Amino acid sequence: MADEIVLLDFWSSMFGMRVRIALAEKGIKYQHKEEDLRNKSELLLKMNPVHKKIPVLIHNGKPVCESLIIVQYIDEVWNDKSPLLPSDPCQRAHARFWADFVDKKVYDASRRVWTRKGEEQEAAKKDFFESFKTLEGELGKKPYFGGETFGFVDISLITFYSWFYVYETFGKFSMEAECPKIIEWVKRCLQKESVAKSLPDQKKVYESVLEWLGRE
Amino acid sequence: MADEIVLLDFWSSMFGMRVRIALAEKGIKYQHKEEDLRNKSELLLKMNPVHKKIPVLIHNGKPVCESLIIVQYIDEVWNDKSPLLPSDPCQRAHARFWADFVDKKVYDASRRVWTRKGEEQEAAKKDFFESFKTLEGELGKKPYFGGETFGFVDISLITFYSWFYVYETFGKFSMEAECPKIIEWVKRCLQKESVAKSLPDQKKVYESVLEWLGRE
Repeated sequence: MADEIVLLDFWSSMFGMRVRIALAEKGIKYQHKEEDLRNKSELLLKMNPVHKKIPVLIHNGKPVCESLIIVQYIDEVWNDKSPLLPSDPCQRAHARFWADFVDKKVYDASRRVWTRKGEEQEAAKKDFFESFKTLEGELGKKPYFGGETFGFVDISLITFYSWFYVYETFGKFSMEAECPKIIEWVKRCLQKESVAKSLPDQKKVYESVLEWLGRE
Repeated sequence: MADEIVLLDFWSSMFGMRVRIALAEKGIKYQHKEEDLRNKSELLLKMNPVHKKIPVLIHNGKPVCESLIIVQYIDEVWNDKSPLLPSDPCQRAHARFWADFVDKKVYDASRRVWTRKGEEQEAAKKDFFESFKTLEGELGKKPYFGGETFGFVDISLITFYSWFYVYETFGKFSMEAECPKIIEWVKRCLQKESVAKSLPDQKKVYESVLEWLGRE
């Protein structure tokens, strides 16, 4: 019997995009269910009763929640192609550290860049650039964060690219000018079909943010 | 050549305790280096330049940071005894989910219980009990979070026990009265030498908190 795979998702979520990329990397066919986040489905509330958040991967009826945990799950279950985490425990820990850094530092700062104003926004921009500068340092001269091949840390970070236009417009800066090495890395990632087809258009994300702010 | 294993730690850190328990479960001998958190060592700043935080496990000169990542690393490297994570990918994801829940929900609420006052403290207590009630629901009738054997989620949560007296005294409540099933589970965990010897005395933690608050 073929696996039944369902992804509960929302198009502009950088966390949902991570799962889309991982599934695409592995060549896994799945059913995509778009959630209405203002009116969450019974299925979402049943499958993720603790956080009530997307993304949720439902594999043969069993839910897996939290994007980085889902990506690791996908890598462990479909381990015959496109390894996302390295096999060496030390390198695995290193990859987990940097994906965790993206969640702890980049996400928080990036959100504050477009939701805050004045001094709070300036502080957010400072944290945002500091995080990306640290990431540029970690990337160094490697093509991808894990080295020669696209992997776990790349997946955790590249999805933020679809929000760059939001950050740049609200924060009045240019990512190309501030973090040129990150932009070079972004271009490399976008050459991968798994990434290009999983990320929505930046302008569409920006318009949805304007709409969301207008409703607040 | 024998492995050289060093743990940079601080005695009352629930994150440091997690690593101590994992190392004890695996029967690993290591050098314990207590940090002065107001005057961090050159070694700590060199080994964890991003977060500058303990615990750091240094294995043959290479650092591993962030407690849950370290525990997974220990489980992957010393995989011949006392498995901490289950081998089934779905159960592994489940264990990671709950350990992540402890980090995201329990830690934040528990800290606010003793650092806030008035309405903010009441809100913290509400979040704290809600987290522990959710954990009681997840524990159910199992002896440990993973089932019959002590594992990853137990390690991530049991270290908070050494702070229960702080939460109870500042928050004016009794964990035994509020979360009796958690206390039963605590007693089971404390029967394990790996846990009992890794957790400091609750009163000593409380006194250090009073001292810390007096300096603020």
